[in-house]
Amino acid sequence: MQSELIAQAEQHIPEGYDPRLYKIRHSAAHVMAQAVLERFPGAKPTIGPPIEDRFYYDFDLPRPPKENDLAWIEQRMKEIIKERHRFSVREVSVDEACSLFKDNPYKIELIQELANGQDDASGITVYQHDSFVDLCRGPHVPHTGYIKANGVKLLTTAGAFWRGDAARPQLTRIYGTAWKNRTELDAYLARLEEARKRDHRVLGRKLQLFTFSDQVGPGLPLWLPKGATLHDTLVTFLKQEQLRRNYLPVITPHIGRLDLYRTSGHYPYYKDSQFPAMETADGEGYLLRPMNCPHHIQIYAHRRRSYRELPMRLAEFGQVYRYEQSGELGGLTRVRGFTVDDAHIFCRHSQIKDEIKDTIDLTLKVLRSLSFEDFSVQLSLRDPADHKKYAGSTAIWDAAETAIREAVQEMDLDYHEALGEAAFYGPKVDFMVRDVLKREWQLGTVQLDYNLPDRFDLTYVGADDRRHRPAMIHRAPFGSLERFVGVLIEHCGGAFPVWLAPEQARVLTISERFVEYAAGVHQQLLRGGVRAHLDARSEKVGYKIREAQAEKVPYMLVIGAKEVTSDTVRVRHRSGEDRGPMSVEAFVAMVTRESDLT
Amino acid sequence: MQSELIAQAEQHIPEGYDPRLYKIRHSAAHVMAQAVLERFPGAKPTIGPPIEDRFYYDFDLPRPPKENDLAWIEQRMKEIIKERHRFSVREVSVDEACSLFKDNPYKIELIQELANGQDDASGITVYQHDSFVDLCRGPHVPHTGYIKANGVKLLTTAGAFWRGDAARPQLTRIYGTAWKNRTELDAYLARLEEARKRDHRVLGRKLQLFTFSDQVGPGLPLWLPKGATLHDTLVTFLKQEQLRRNYLPVITPHIGRLDLYRTSGHYPYYKDSQFPAMETADGEGYLLRPMNCPHHIQIYAHRRRSYRELPMRLAEFGQVYRYEQSGELGGLTRVRGFTVDDAHIFCRHSQIKDEIKDTIDLTLKVLRSLSFEDFSVQLSLRDPADHKKYAGSTAIWDAAETAIREAVQEMDLDYHEALGEAAFYGPKVDFMVRDVLKREWQLGTVQLDYNLPDRFDLTYVGADDRRHRPAMIHRAPFGSLERFVGVLIEHCGGAFPVWLAPEQARVLTISERFVEYAAGVHQQLLRGGVRAHLDARSEKVGYKIREAQAEKVPYMLVIGAKEVTSDTVRVRHRSGEDRGPMSVEAFVAMVTRESDLT
Repeated sequence: MQSELIAQAEQHIPEGYDPRLYKIRHSAAHVMAQAVLERFPGAKPTIGPPIEDRFYYDFDLPRPPKENDLAWIEQRMKEIIKERHRFSVREVSVDEACSLFKDNPYKIELIQELANGQDDASGITVYQHDSFVDLCRGPHVPHTGYIKANGVKLLTTAGAFWRGDAARPQLTRIYGTAWKNRTELDAYLARLEEARKRDHRVLGRKLQLFTFSDQVGPGLPLWLPKGATLHDTLVTFLKQEQLRRNYLPVITPHIGRLDLYRTSGHYPYYKDSQFPAMETADGEGYLLRPMNCPHHIQIYAHRRRSYRELPMRLAEFGQVYRYEQSGELGGLTRVRGFTVDDAHIFCRHSQIKDEIKDTIDLTLKVLRSLSFEDFSVQLSLRDPADHKKYAGSTAIWDAAETAIREAVQEMDLDYHEALGEAAFYGPKVDFMVRDVLKREWQLGTVQLDYNLPDRFDLTYVGADDRRHRPAMIHRAPFGSLERFVGVLIEHCGGAFPVWLAPEQARVLTISERFVEYAAGVHQQLLRGGVRAHLDARSEKVGYKIREAQAEKVPYMLVIGAKEVTSDTVRVRHRSGEDRGPMSVEAFVAMVTRESDLT
Repeated sequence: MQSELIAQAEQHIPEGYDPRLYKIRHSAAHVMAQAVLERFPGAKPTIGPPIEDRFYYDFDLPRPPKENDLAWIEQRMKEIIKERHRFSVREVSVDEACSLFKDNPYKIELIQELANGQDDASGITVYQHDSFVDLCRGPHVPHTGYIKANGVKLLTTAGAFWRGDAARPQLTRIYGTAWKNRTELDAYLARLEEARKRDHRVLGRKLQLFTFSDQVGPGLPLWLPKGATLHDTLVTFLKQEQLRRNYLPVITPHIGRLDLYRTSGHYPYYKDSQFPAMETADGEGYLLRPMNCPHHIQIYAHRRRSYRELPMRLAEFGQVYRYEQSGELGGLTRVRGFTVDDAHIFCRHSQIKDEIKDTIDLTLKVLRSLSFEDFSVQLSLRDPADHKKYAGSTAIWDAAETAIREAVQEMDLDYHEALGEAAFYGPKVDFMVRDVLKREWQLGTVQLDYNLPDRFDLTYVGADDRRHRPAMIHRAPFGSLERFVGVLIEHCGGAFPVWLAPEQARVLTISERFVEYAAGVHQQLLRGGVRAHLDARSEKVGYKIREAQAEKVPYMLVIGAKEVTSDTVRVRHRSGEDRGPMSVEAFVAMVTRESDLT
């Protein structure tokens, strides 16, 4: 009976999760709950699952925990682990379960849901080790000794609502982590520490890139001068690339009448994730735009189009606004206002493959220019079991999926196909990027759309003098510029590549006697197109260098007597490396070379 | 008695209006009304004043007028003019006036208002010529012969509401013009025709610069690729100028919480000219921003500032939205969404003069780069009779007004002072620009602000280690980029200076045999930074040239056998001038030189 239940429990391990680690963490959560009950008599455990790299347990506690509570609990966990208590499982009836947890309304609620969801009352299991019994579907390790005392660590506490519902009681969530051994734990803690240091919210403040304001509103970043320079440099870089590829710039307003979004289908369908409409006195409602496509479609459609004009690639760095729940906001990776490096390509169906190849090529160029080298491509295709739920004919989809597949194959890309992951309006190509901390992010995207051209009745006049429906491609190599910058800051730890650094060089004087020469150097750098500043304060040069390094300025040009005499600058890299003396011309040439992305 | 009334009437001529023209036009309006009454028995005249260059009269007509009605009326006016009917004036009592106009409720309403506004019933005058009597304060010419039949022309009709109130009866407005003689009339009509040809709404469509969409909404321009290129080129030009002057770029969202605008005072005070607030479920209201200042203030205030950081010049091409009445919308000169080339300078009071000088210098640079050479500067200062209605102390205002005056004097500018024209929050410098059609536009502006720094409690820490209030300057050389482009299109008739032209050169092939060479030339131009297109269609070259000229492309590079053989291009200017053969390098160098604004 035990072994049958254990076998059943094993099926609950999510795909891709190391089964041993899953069981260790799940068991550690139970051990933690036992220790919490000992520290906080009357505490009510609710749920406590393993998550990626960690586990947590939510408790209804009689008082908020303090730092020393956590230390006590962790210490007590290590004792329980060393006592090698066996985990046993048994099936219980609903009545028995209710009586076991009669003092815990949270568990009672869970039991009732379990009972409602089942044909008979069987299938409810409880796990016990030592004195601790929990309503649980497993699986667990055979005994607590499998957990390893030196592989366990409690991390933080946080507030959480019961069932994630803000209207229900607030609970205390305790996070911990557990690994097979101390080496693995230490490696994980080092990664955590590195991520903490690279946290773009921390670096964003330290490097003075962006800020937020309560009066402006949560999730609405204000780009400070250095951040705005970074933002503009990214935009200029992509604009130039797009110009080379015959994209056409457009500029459109940030609002549109509700009619526009009713036609596109974005309203009222996505109403909950949008800012509420502005109801003007004349009865026209306006929406702060959640996406740019309908505006670009208005430009395409403002006059008759000929097949000779296709492919037409309309591009705009368009700000859009979405009303994300405020609990979800934090830094740049989840915001309420962001810039999409948007383009919409209107083309003939026979042009799809070439357009897809060009958009992929552009996306690769962007990612590589920002030293993202570890990425894979996902083709999101139809669900083969249900072709009916998609907009557009089967013939068109077949052709499009083939075109996309051939495009990535011809470009020799590492890709995989995800069946059933296509949007209802078309298949897509997503770029999954791994940063230096090995975290995966979905960045650039290329999507075919067979829905909007129909909804807006878009046409072009073909060589046959008849009207045809164009294909439409949405593409955004950065995706959201804000989110991209957030990921990028963490990827490079704030040390941006030279071409992108808001401040590429800082001129530092050793003493006030050299300020005039330094000012001349500074002017020469500016004329040469180098983003440079002059630090002529009467601080010690060592202090100035440390400050510039902390601000991740790629190059420091130190000016002392020797430099003035020899008409040079002494170049230090932010890594600490001394690049020796150089003429200003040579330095400008070096920065220009390093900034050339062609 | 007559001469006394006539002398009184002369005082009603507005300052700056030629008295003879005023009387001619006012009299022509009466003559027109007489003719209208003959054509439309039962018509009710309402009011009919002279306006700039023209006059009009609003009638309640029994049916809408047709083209041939206008011709008939104009013909009849010429007869009446030639009959030299004397204008006579007399004072009437309210009762007499009411009885004279008893069939005309509009005049009765006016008479009653006149009666209410006066201590006694005297002062109401009526003018008569021939059979036509009108309630009127004059002045008029001695007899209709002074008008000159060949100096008069009727122009258009339009709908108008009685007293401008949409809830009251709709009237028919007939516009006419009258001049001292035929030569002056013809010159005016030629200017009208020129303005019509230069109308930026017409040219905007013809040159494919911008469009509007009913679904997006009125007054919300969509910039087409050529217009977006123009827009971007203007922005880049000013960004570079600002960088040189140590402005700091920032980027901020297009919305803010109502709180922000309550603090700034922009809400609810200006509510009627704003898009309605977005009321989110969490009770926070958001406003589509009517101006950028509060956001820039949040950036200034996000951390403690030192006197060493001042002057701090925060710049952004910030889109703002205002809810103009839909009757006021038309083209780019009045829109609901526009881009302000905004900057806010936070400085010490002692720095105001230098900052004003620099902002004026920048504005002059901008205007001259766009060949606006005819401008004057207006200093808007306090009303000397009422110093109390202004924000900020008298001492501060005195110093600021002196600083502004000294700044324009030291810059040797043609300026005049407008007392009482200052905003309540500070004095300002406005640039009044005359375009080639001699129309005056208020473009760039520089404004001091003593209100917002108080409202947001802005401070900086001085050298004395104490907190001080900074001064704040708003400035925008273009003002609204949209409006500026509208004026610029009419000023240059769509023939933008080379540096700004969206398409600087077009390569035209004489026959298909030269397409390969032409494509090489095109690529060379693009590499050289010239915005160029290739027209390789198999049309006749004359046709292609005319098309490029109509699209105001500055240079056409014609490619035939001779050019291929000699490795040159034949350069034609849009004016029709043949610049002869040139190497591509020489052409690129010429365009680069012409585009250099430094």
